[in-house]
Amino acid sequence: MTENNNGSVFITFEGGEGSGKSTQLQLLKEWLNPLLDKPAVFTREPGGTEGAEAIRDLLVTGAVDRWDKLTETLMYMAARRDHLQRVIWPSLEEGRWVVSDRFVDSTICYQGYGHNINLETLWSMYNVIAGDFMPDLTFYLDVDSEIGLKRTSERSGKEAEENRFESIDISFHKRLRAGFLTLAEQNPDRYVVIDAHRSIQAIQQTIQSTIEDRFQLEKAA
Amino acid sequence: MTENNNGSVFITFEGGEGSGKSTQLQLLKEWLNPLLDKPAVFTREPGGTEGAEAIRDLLVTGAVDRWDKLTETLMYMAARRDHLQRVIWPSLEEGRWVVSDRFVDSTICYQGYGHNINLETLWSMYNVIAGDFMPDLTFYLDVDSEIGLKRTSERSGKEAEENRFESIDISFHKRLRAGFLTLAEQNPDRYVVIDAHRSIQAIQQTIQSTIEDRFQLEKAA
Repeated sequence: MTENNNGSVFITFEGGEGSGKSTQLQLLKEWLNPLLDKPAVFTREPGGTEGAEAIRDLLVTGAVDRWDKLTETLMYMAARRDHLQRVIWPSLEEGRWVVSDRFVDSTICYQGYGHNINLETLWSMYNVIAGDFMPDLTFYLDVDSEIGLKRTSERSGKEAEENRFESIDISFHKRLRAGFLTLAEQNPDRYVVIDAHRSIQAIQQTIQSTIEDRFQLEKAA
Repeated sequence: MTENNNGSVFITFEGGEGSGKSTQLQLLKEWLNPLLDKPAVFTREPGGTEGAEAIRDLLVTGAVDRWDKLTETLMYMAARRDHLQRVIWPSLEEGRWVVSDRFVDSTICYQGYGHNINLETLWSMYNVIAGDFMPDLTFYLDVDSEIGLKRTSERSGKEAEENRFESIDISFHKRLRAGFLTLAEQNPDRYVVIDAHRSIQAIQQTIQSTIEDRFQLEKAA
């Protein structure tokens, strides 16, 4: 199925606010799992483990300036280390697929391109927690920053409470998008940039056909 | 009073379990504050700010293996960054003295010498959050590991709940002590090693006279 020793695959989804990641991940799960021997592990960052979710709670609630940007970065890295150690690596070792809603590229783009933390510092922190481990495939759902922010403004409930990211100005979101597009350019083998202005069905179709091609998945009968 | 531009001084206290730090810090506070224009800021790590105390709560409760050692290290560094940014640096800038119960040397000794995290990695993480900032003076309360552990076993209440550190075996505590003594050797200008087997009064006397000499503090009338 894949180059990997035991058939495991690690896929990450990245995208700014309102890019439609959650919807796409739900549709992907429904399509992908029947094609696999064991269901894929769908997880998210920050979070994905009990400890990392506790760190997430500290990170995503409260005032925008609750944490200084470096403090925040260290907490994201701590949560990621827990996630790698307790969910991502053990699942891959069992031969399972893992699909994560956000991963290291989010830190590079939000904290690096967005908040001007030195990119080399960020990558060296990542190397401390993860060595040279990287996703096999990353989808970036690319959406115009204004359109994405407009979409999120219509949200409510739990998601609306976790609104620290959205409450930052538009120029931040433009730097973020430029960051993701730069990462995509620098990592053409890993990255697939998807135009997320299209219909939900069209986007999902691109995701599914990319995965089929890349990992020689058999189409369901 | 001191070499520092504005009369501020940063003192840290280090020591293994049962070294008597808390008692000594209380006595020091009673003696020191009347000698200063503005009372010193007595603080602690992990903690010292609202955010860092929230991280401390995640760190010091629960099972010993709740966090992997690298995850734990990143959380200590995050808490320290918050502490520096919101308490230590602003207080020093105001010309106040700051006295912290534990600081970076605890991370070097517990996570480095104790849990075998690479020392260079730890120092480079510290440099990311703090640059070349270091305490002006560090007291290490040195106590035989067996005696220290015996003392803590008699504690109760909140301190007993925060018992993850004490529940590690004796060889860990011996590595820890060796770590602090190594740091003291490497930093003779910053470190004062105090034999903490002596009486409370004798230890406090050494602390006070060291501070008087080092910072030309006038003895109270």
